[in-house]
Amino acid sequence: MTHIAVDTLIFAKWIIPVVPEGVVLREHAVAVTGSKITDILPAADAANKYQGKNTFHLNDHALMPGLINAHGHAAMNLFKGLADDLPLMVWLGEHIWPAESKWVSEKFVADGTLLAITEMLRTGTTFFSDMYFYPNIAAEVASQHKIRTQVCFPVLDFPTNWASDADSYIHKGIELFDKYRNSDFVHTAFGPHAPYTVSDEPLKKIVTLSEQLNANIQIHLHETAFEVEDAVAKTGVRPIQRLYDLGLMSPALQCVHMTQISNDDLKLVTESGAHVIHCPESNLKLASGYCPVQKLTNAGVNVAIGTDGAASNNNLDMLAEIKTTALIGKAVANDASAVSAAAALSMATINGATAMGLAEKTGSLTCGKWADMIAIDFSPVYHQPVYDPISHVVYSASGADVSHNWIGGQLHLKEKELTKIDIVHLKARVNEWVEKIGNKQ
Amino acid sequence: MTHIAVDTLIFAKWIIPVVPEGVVLREHAVAVTGSKITDILPAADAANKYQGKNTFHLNDHALMPGLINAHGHAAMNLFKGLADDLPLMVWLGEHIWPAESKWVSEKFVADGTLLAITEMLRTGTTFFSDMYFYPNIAAEVASQHKIRTQVCFPVLDFPTNWASDADSYIHKGIELFDKYRNSDFVHTAFGPHAPYTVSDEPLKKIVTLSEQLNANIQIHLHETAFEVEDAVAKTGVRPIQRLYDLGLMSPALQCVHMTQISNDDLKLVTESGAHVIHCPESNLKLASGYCPVQKLTNAGVNVAIGTDGAASNNNLDMLAEIKTTALIGKAVANDASAVSAAAALSMATINGATAMGLAEKTGSLTCGKWADMIAIDFSPVYHQPVYDPISHVVYSASGADVSHNWIGGQLHLKEKELTKIDIVHLKARVNEWVEKIGNKQ
Repeated sequence: MTHIAVDTLIFAKWIIPVVPEGVVLREHAVAVTGSKITDILPAADAANKYQGKNTFHLNDHALMPGLINAHGHAAMNLFKGLADDLPLMVWLGEHIWPAESKWVSEKFVADGTLLAITEMLRTGTTFFSDMYFYPNIAAEVASQHKIRTQVCFPVLDFPTNWASDADSYIHKGIELFDKYRNSDFVHTAFGPHAPYTVSDEPLKKIVTLSEQLNANIQIHLHETAFEVEDAVAKTGVRPIQRLYDLGLMSPALQCVHMTQISNDDLKLVTESGAHVIHCPESNLKLASGYCPVQKLTNAGVNVAIGTDGAASNNNLDMLAEIKTTALIGKAVANDASAVSAAAALSMATINGATAMGLAEKTGSLTCGKWADMIAIDFSPVYHQPVYDPISHVVYSASGADVSHNWIGGQLHLKEKELTKIDIVHLKARVNEWVEKIGNKQ
Repeated sequence: MTHIAVDTLIFAKWIIPVVPEGVVLREHAVAVTGSKITDILPAADAANKYQGKNTFHLNDHALMPGLINAHGHAAMNLFKGLADDLPLMVWLGEHIWPAESKWVSEKFVADGTLLAITEMLRTGTTFFSDMYFYPNIAAEVASQHKIRTQVCFPVLDFPTNWASDADSYIHKGIELFDKYRNSDFVHTAFGPHAPYTVSDEPLKKIVTLSEQLNANIQIHLHETAFEVEDAVAKTGVRPIQRLYDLGLMSPALQCVHMTQISNDDLKLVTESGAHVIHCPESNLKLASGYCPVQKLTNAGVNVAIGTDGAASNNNLDMLAEIKTTALIGKAVANDASAVSAAAALSMATINGATAMGLAEKTGSLTCGKWADMIAIDFSPVYHQPVYDPISHVVYSASGADVSHNWIGGQLHLKEKELTKIDIVHLKARVNEWVEKIGNKQ
């Protein structure tokens, strides 16, 4: 009997495809040809049918889609732990903004983004959204290392290291969009920072251009009660109403944070088809408020999950973020059955892909989609017993348990070791930054 | 020059003694003789002064006190993930209680407790409080494996697998107390389950006996709003007021959960000197409510941290619990500067020791105290940069980063490997339980 040759054949004790939600396939295998998943079938059938150039027997593992970190500022990893336990405006005004103004450069973004990528690959992320200065550099690093990214180029009214005014941000962003128009790895989006840092004219331009280019928009929105109150005092309307009036509310919009949601706000989100990106650990750490995830889900809103930057978290461990999403989601809903393990897992995978307009390409283990996959190793004795692998992934595991990470069929993490990144050189470059930025202790 | 011989000499990049709070010693060493810490001094001085029988050079590590898990039900690890995402009473009434009634035996407690101990040693716990059936078995397992425990023997009005009525629980408990009276590892405490499961007479007996024996008392208290409302409807007073009237409120009392705290409640806790054991992940997962940690701390209450049982968490990772304590503490206080990293770390170490009346013996790296210590390995590139090791331990690390664990100077975990437990046999016994208890999938 002739076997069909495939590039990679993975046998796993449990396969969690995520779509359909809640399903666990036992003793199955995934076949990968080129960059795509080409079959998912019982292990015995796979052994009869396929011959893998690379074959994996993951006898104590759950195989599932790679995690999608839907909001972050990757290069800020170089500021991780620089300042903590401070009120938001002190943290920003006295620590983060001065540090950014002093240190952020093309080299900073290159090193910081790669540092973040090592952490994300190690802890199971295959796709991350990024919003930071020098998005061209972040795009280059991600593209070079073949991790998927949605690069949201910043748009602000005021000058920063990267650009001088709203028009120049947009101009540079469009160049970036053009450069990666056909890339499977870099997906360029508009990143107007927040309603309070971008005025109406650039926001209107963004609406027009995003429609022309079929590009997404990501914005920090209703992060704190102060933001909303301040906007109402200054403009007479809540920020989300202003965005609606300007034409921004649409399925192309990703609203990050949304800890403040009135019934009118909810209606605007629901009816427009905009997505909400929930960053629970950042919201808690900065005491920003609580995003009512179950309420949004009940209303039909697509909710995805992000870690936010490492400076306000302080890690990029999406498995920890998923657990926090489920736990805080129950407490906020005052219902232990709210935000189930399976629902939280969807938010960190398929919902992220949906928010980025790429649900046809990634976010679940489905034939024809990119082979963006991770394995979680439950062999250690302290992980026993495993009654329900989905519960285990969400409530018991952490990023350290991720053993394998494939993006487009390429193996980036093998038995918990990064396979493609020159760690020694990266560490040396990071140490240089630490010495320059200054050691508090 | 003659060197003084010590049993263990540990050089570490950072030493976090916890007392005094917030201090980090760089390039220091800890000397251990017998079961105790006998010196803490600069690395250069240590190299000149001491010769260790066992010497460790932890060049990328933080060395700190072992973590104290102040509330849990260790044997429930065998039920981890058996049922999740359910309302509290459905979870208890339809899943946990029937499972306990069917499966809990001496053998179950022996295997489940050892399973929990492997997870705790691996993730940095050196001392755990336990409250479960067959506390004699849990005490035996902990004593045999030389991990420290406060065994809270249960007291209930109704019969369970272990005893038939309140008097027989107390009688068996006193026997346990006598057996371990002189143990450095097993510390026996009274464990009246909760105000709603123990009537006045046994509670009064417990007050008298705990004073005579100088023993602690741990009780689940004000876990949910329902518990308080129900008690008020039935007795006319809030549960904590009833405990106060019965004489239970004292520095010997450890109040677990306390998500409902009125101003009068706070006064009773503060004035009595009772301790609060905060279990944030369990409280969130069961949607029980929020313990106002900063408010308690401001009032001078000693707050310690527990994971609760693995069936409602679902892990025993105290580093994750510390992070959750800091994050949710800030959100609940609506203040990003509340529950600082250093404060949360104290709660998981010295405050736990204080709650158990053992602050003279453990809970910090202090000369004369037991050498209960852990090391956390920050060498992986994704842990860089480390500006502030305390922030890093609390916000960035997880239990998987713990590399070494010493209890009373004995090494239980070395380079992330358990050194003293027969993992193969334990795994086989756990697998037998899983097959019997039944696999949902």
